[in-house]
Amino acid sequence: MFPTDLIKSNNPLNKIEMNKQILTILIYLICLPFFAQNASNQKFNLMPWPQELTTGIGNFIISKDFTVNIVDKSNKNKRVYEAVTRFLRTLSNNTGIFIDQGFVYPDTNYDNPSLLISFDTTEEVRLGVDESYSLYITPKQIRINAKTDIGAMHGLNTLLQLILVENNHFTFPVLSINDSPRFEWRGLMLDVSRHFMPVDVVKRNLDAMAYVKMNVFHWHLYDDQGFRIESKKLPDLTLKGSDGLFYTQEQIKDIVKYADDRGIRVMPEIDVPGHGTAFATAYPEIASKDTIYELERYAGIFNPTLDPTNEKTYEVLETLFAEITPLFPDVYFHIGGDENEGHHWDENNDIQKFMKENNLKNNHELQTYFNIRLQKILKKQGKILMGWDEIMTENMPKDAIIHSWRIVKEGQDLKQIEVAKNGYKTVLSSGYYIDLMLPAKDHYLNDPIPQENQLSKEQESLIIGGEATMWSELVTPLTVDSRIWPRTAAIAERFWSSKKIRDVENMYLRLNEISNDLEQIGILHQRNKEVILRNITNYQDTRALNDLANVSEPFKIYTRNRGGKQYKSYSPFTLFADACNVDAIDAIKFNALCSEYLEKKSSESKNEILSYFEKWKNIESDLVKMAPKAPILFNILPYSQRVSKISVLLEKALKNGKLTKKEFDQVNELLDAKENPLTNLDVEFAVKDTLKRLALYLLK
Amino acid sequence: MFPTDLIKSNNPLNKIEMNKQILTILIYLICLPFFAQNASNQKFNLMPWPQELTTGIGNFIISKDFTVNIVDKSNKNKRVYEAVTRFLRTLSNNTGIFIDQGFVYPDTNYDNPSLLISFDTTEEVRLGVDESYSLYITPKQIRINAKTDIGAMHGLNTLLQLILVENNHFTFPVLSINDSPRFEWRGLMLDVSRHFMPVDVVKRNLDAMAYVKMNVFHWHLYDDQGFRIESKKLPDLTLKGSDGLFYTQEQIKDIVKYADDRGIRVMPEIDVPGHGTAFATAYPEIASKDTIYELERYAGIFNPTLDPTNEKTYEVLETLFAEITPLFPDVYFHIGGDENEGHHWDENNDIQKFMKENNLKNNHELQTYFNIRLQKILKKQGKILMGWDEIMTENMPKDAIIHSWRIVKEGQDLKQIEVAKNGYKTVLSSGYYIDLMLPAKDHYLNDPIPQENQLSKEQESLIIGGEATMWSELVTPLTVDSRIWPRTAAIAERFWSSKKIRDVENMYLRLNEISNDLEQIGILHQRNKEVILRNITNYQDTRALNDLANVSEPFKIYTRNRGGKQYKSYSPFTLFADACNVDAIDAIKFNALCSEYLEKKSSESKNEILSYFEKWKNIESDLVKMAPKAPILFNILPYSQRVSKISVLLEKALKNGKLTKKEFDQVNELLDAKENPLTNLDVEFAVKDTLKRLALYLLK
Repeated sequence: MFPTDLIKSNNPLNKIEMNKQILTILIYLICLPFFAQNASNQKFNLMPWPQELTTGIGNFIISKDFTVNIVDKSNKNKRVYEAVTRFLRTLSNNTGIFIDQGFVYPDTNYDNPSLLISFDTTEEVRLGVDESYSLYITPKQIRINAKTDIGAMHGLNTLLQLILVENNHFTFPVLSINDSPRFEWRGLMLDVSRHFMPVDVVKRNLDAMAYVKMNVFHWHLYDDQGFRIESKKLPDLTLKGSDGLFYTQEQIKDIVKYADDRGIRVMPEIDVPGHGTAFATAYPEIASKDTIYELERYAGIFNPTLDPTNEKTYEVLETLFAEITPLFPDVYFHIGGDENEGHHWDENNDIQKFMKENNLKNNHELQTYFNIRLQKILKKQGKILMGWDEIMTENMPKDAIIHSWRIVKEGQDLKQIEVAKNGYKTVLSSGYYIDLMLPAKDHYLNDPIPQENQLSKEQESLIIGGEATMWSELVTPLTVDSRIWPRTAAIAERFWSSKKIRDVENMYLRLNEISNDLEQIGILHQRNKEVILRNITNYQDTRALNDLANVSEPFKIYTRNRGGKQYKSYSPFTLFADACNVDAIDAIKFNALCSEYLEKKSSESKNEILSYFEKWKNIESDLVKMAPKAPILFNILPYSQRVSKISVLLEKALKNGKLTKKEFDQVNELLDAKENPLTNLDVEFAVKDTLKRLALYLLK
Repeated sequence: MFPTDLIKSNNPLNKIEMNKQILTILIYLICLPFFAQNASNQKFNLMPWPQELTTGIGNFIISKDFTVNIVDKSNKNKRVYEAVTRFLRTLSNNTGIFIDQGFVYPDTNYDNPSLLISFDTTEEVRLGVDESYSLYITPKQIRINAKTDIGAMHGLNTLLQLILVENNHFTFPVLSINDSPRFEWRGLMLDVSRHFMPVDVVKRNLDAMAYVKMNVFHWHLYDDQGFRIESKKLPDLTLKGSDGLFYTQEQIKDIVKYADDRGIRVMPEIDVPGHGTAFATAYPEIASKDTIYELERYAGIFNPTLDPTNEKTYEVLETLFAEITPLFPDVYFHIGGDENEGHHWDENNDIQKFMKENNLKNNHELQTYFNIRLQKILKKQGKILMGWDEIMTENMPKDAIIHSWRIVKEGQDLKQIEVAKNGYKTVLSSGYYIDLMLPAKDHYLNDPIPQENQLSKEQESLIIGGEATMWSELVTPLTVDSRIWPRTAAIAERFWSSKKIRDVENMYLRLNEISNDLEQIGILHQRNKEVILRNITNYQDTRALNDLANVSEPFKIYTRNRGGKQYKSYSPFTLFADACNVDAIDAIKFNALCSEYLEKKSSESKNEILSYFEKWKNIESDLVKMAPKAPILFNILPYSQRVSKISVLLEKALKNGKLTKKEFDQVNELLDAKENPLTNLDVEFAVKDTLKRLALYLLK
């Protein structure tokens, strides 16, 4: 479709330019015997995978003479110009090529530019904006066409992902892409309350979001552990409620602009009336219980709650919202509304009296009363309300967006289905809780619109997208990148790409490459792992510990923080578990290897398995040697001893082709053993199930 | 001296507390058979080394029960409270210990606190403030006493550097320290014009400065390549003169506060009248030549210069200074004043006429006229002028500080000597140009007050300190940390410690540990090296390239950027040279090893040398294998081939105990060979001289 499309497009170029274009196309047609359409192609490390990709033959060679022109039909764009500057820097930094062109200005007009970007309109970043683009690569020229500047920027990021090495050169492959998102809401929520995340953390994650075409930054600015946005009208919110860790209004503006420059909406969340500790610490008079409040240091669901029967509560919230909503141009405002159990309401006679007087039958109805009042306050500020799924009640106006997060019991409708049936728009986060520390594939295979769903087409269209949620109880600026990335790139693909794109193996291959790209654009997930390991070993050799980390995964599904009391917000998150990642890299390789071995019994895979055992069995002795200079290692030794013992037993058995029943029991006992929770080891041996299968096979 | 001092001090504690203290001391006296005073002690990784250190026996064991009380006699401090919070976090993160205490508040009052901090006054951060402190560590308690809050914070950083491992525990050693700085001005200059450095870069470097007790951040905010501070009155300065890369006034305030919280003064520099390109791009009407200006992309000394004969120039500067000086509480303001060759003045008839009319005999007198006008403008804003040594002229008021930077011809007085003789205060940077990429020892041994100097005591006292200068022509946010650190820690020691502390070997041992500490407090010098190597190898195995990097040093003394035209400001600084560091780690080890071998001829050192050759000879073949997937490697291959060939020849010779004349010539030719400059390899083999000595020995 490339040549036709190119000819059809309302080409803004002059005639000579047009003729050159046609010539390029003709050369291109001669060069290309065929195009091949394919669903997902291992050669290209695109993520999210585009809607339509047609491959060709040949490539565009990247050289220092790479040039870019922009054709801006709106004549008023800034975003794409800056995006091209960033594109040129990334291209130059990644390839080491000294590209002559440093900037694109409105009057930049190279003859035969390497890259010609054309778009029709400059748009506000808002829900539903056209994000489509086309990308055509020929050996002579690259073209990005888009309706909006935002689409054009997506095209630039796709192009960056297409850098390939061919014949000792950095190249772009000849191909044609037509692309647009499946869902219009593709978000990442970042909790900056449980652990504060400084401006640079937010910015680098916005860069990464743009790289995988996410378009909503949901900023969880308030929770029990801290109020993170400056209010000049209500200064105690940060004076008493933040430990001094908050964003000034100027910083908020700076980040909102930074996101906007990358086509990303910013939606703030102030989570009320529950999660009220920090609020109540600053303004106890609007809380539901007359007590002394202090900032929460633990994780969990706590009782402090705003008092919905107190007019002062609404005055305070209205003052706050009137002050901060102008900082956020986006029309949606998230009021949270989750996890309020209302114990302090039950205890408060005045509140009980109010409920009776107003015929509010239970806490849920009281909270609804509160939500509707808030909705009206926000409406005055021109905002539309969004909230966690608890806010869905009869009186909630239909323009509110319901954020589906709760997991339902078997037999019940999934939350997003229930919400859509009720006629509300919904954004899905159930299944995208990345703090559960589940493998990327679990999130990847979770489709916002399940195959069998009994929804009408119209109802289906109410499911407008999803959000990965990064709750930060166990996450600090040092580790947050490794908790978000690379898994969130797989989620970004789920939100952007066709529902048919769901080959897990292929996804992991591409995810691995995208993870490296993310490092080069500034994400610290890989480098900070090493920093933690170096600290643990006290700057001795990290090889053994790294080997162990590569088969260890942090405890999943909130088993790391027993009862929310194992860690305080200021506990050290510089432990072994903090260096370990979901989808442990050697575990993935080893698990695949064993599956192959158990199927085909090749001596090649057997030898590879043996080399892993060889590596693992020596970890313990290496760590023991280092421990006297690095006391943190003592907490890791019992685990490394288990891993070593298991490896010794299975190595011997695999070599001999046989495991005795006694040894089999020993292996299983070792695999099932648990570390003393007081050591805060908090990781699991990520090849456990595979080794159980292998042991069973060897026992036979 | 510890017990006496403790008893003598005006102890603010109540009597019970006093008695407890005395008890502690008695226990301590019983425990300690002796104290030993020593100049510098390898066991302690202190940097800068304190003025007085008395060691004891035993240690304080760090546990989760570690507590801190603050006795603030000024009753108005905030800085130390926040510093203690940071201290507790670092202590906890480094040791993995879950310290119960998270914060110190004014009402925090533990019985028998582990650490008791006491100070008399809360001071403004300013030149000459008392920074002294004492630190006493006993097995039961640690005390920091200081006159000022700033001294107390120095004590905290000293304590952090004293974390040791003893008997499987993290501990602090029993000792006593009395400490104060030798010089009152201990600065780091950061050039944010040649390459812009975002807020987070500045902040993490301020953290590192505080860690090594530096107290002046000299912020080079303006140069030919960009104007980096927002002016609301003169918006074109950043609109036209910054590529959009500048600090908002709010960001400036944020950084100034961040520095102030750490006891660091912030001195801005606006370098005029030379280095005028960005100024002239924004406001050509105040430049000396009627031409079209564009931001400079290269490095060097350029002609654009402000017009000192134009009243508009002073209006613009007065407007600018009136607007921005209030952002900087410090009394000193740096106007640069260097490297103006005045070519545009020579070419301008009006300027020539003005000079005649005003009896200004040459460009230097014209610049003096300009400087004195500026000095008066700044005085109106309450500022004292500082400038590079070119500003020292007869009419300059004696309160100005002259920044000595130029290297003088043999036989002439060093600049700082000349300045002091002229009765001006001076800060020395000659000898501390860290962008020259010279080894730490070169800077370390450069004493601001040379031994033989013909200065009176009073004149000597005019040399008030020094500054390391980080010019950023070849430095980006990715690499700046590795260009500043760890070498600047050695310079910090030169500025703080006694002039007698100058044992290079001991300095390097401590520097190595401090370098690791700096990583743990957030400096990216080590981790970003790996990121660059991973990019160069395109995420293949980096071992071989890392081996090569560890014996390679970036070109020194501005030989990297030939004529200032090899690199533009937006060239890629993600090359091999950018991953290599001064004081290449394996080179230091190997050079020491060879010296030992050549002296003692032990078979042990011989075998170690052979193991290096074994490693180096294989680098080339490993890189060759990876190059097809990583084209950047092609530029490195010729060098790696040289290294491999040299290693093969010398390995053989060392094994055989003999090198033929032909081989000797071959080795020397290989060692002297230069890479094609077009490959931008820009590194030198850092063991070259050692290998020449070894070859000569083997030839004999």
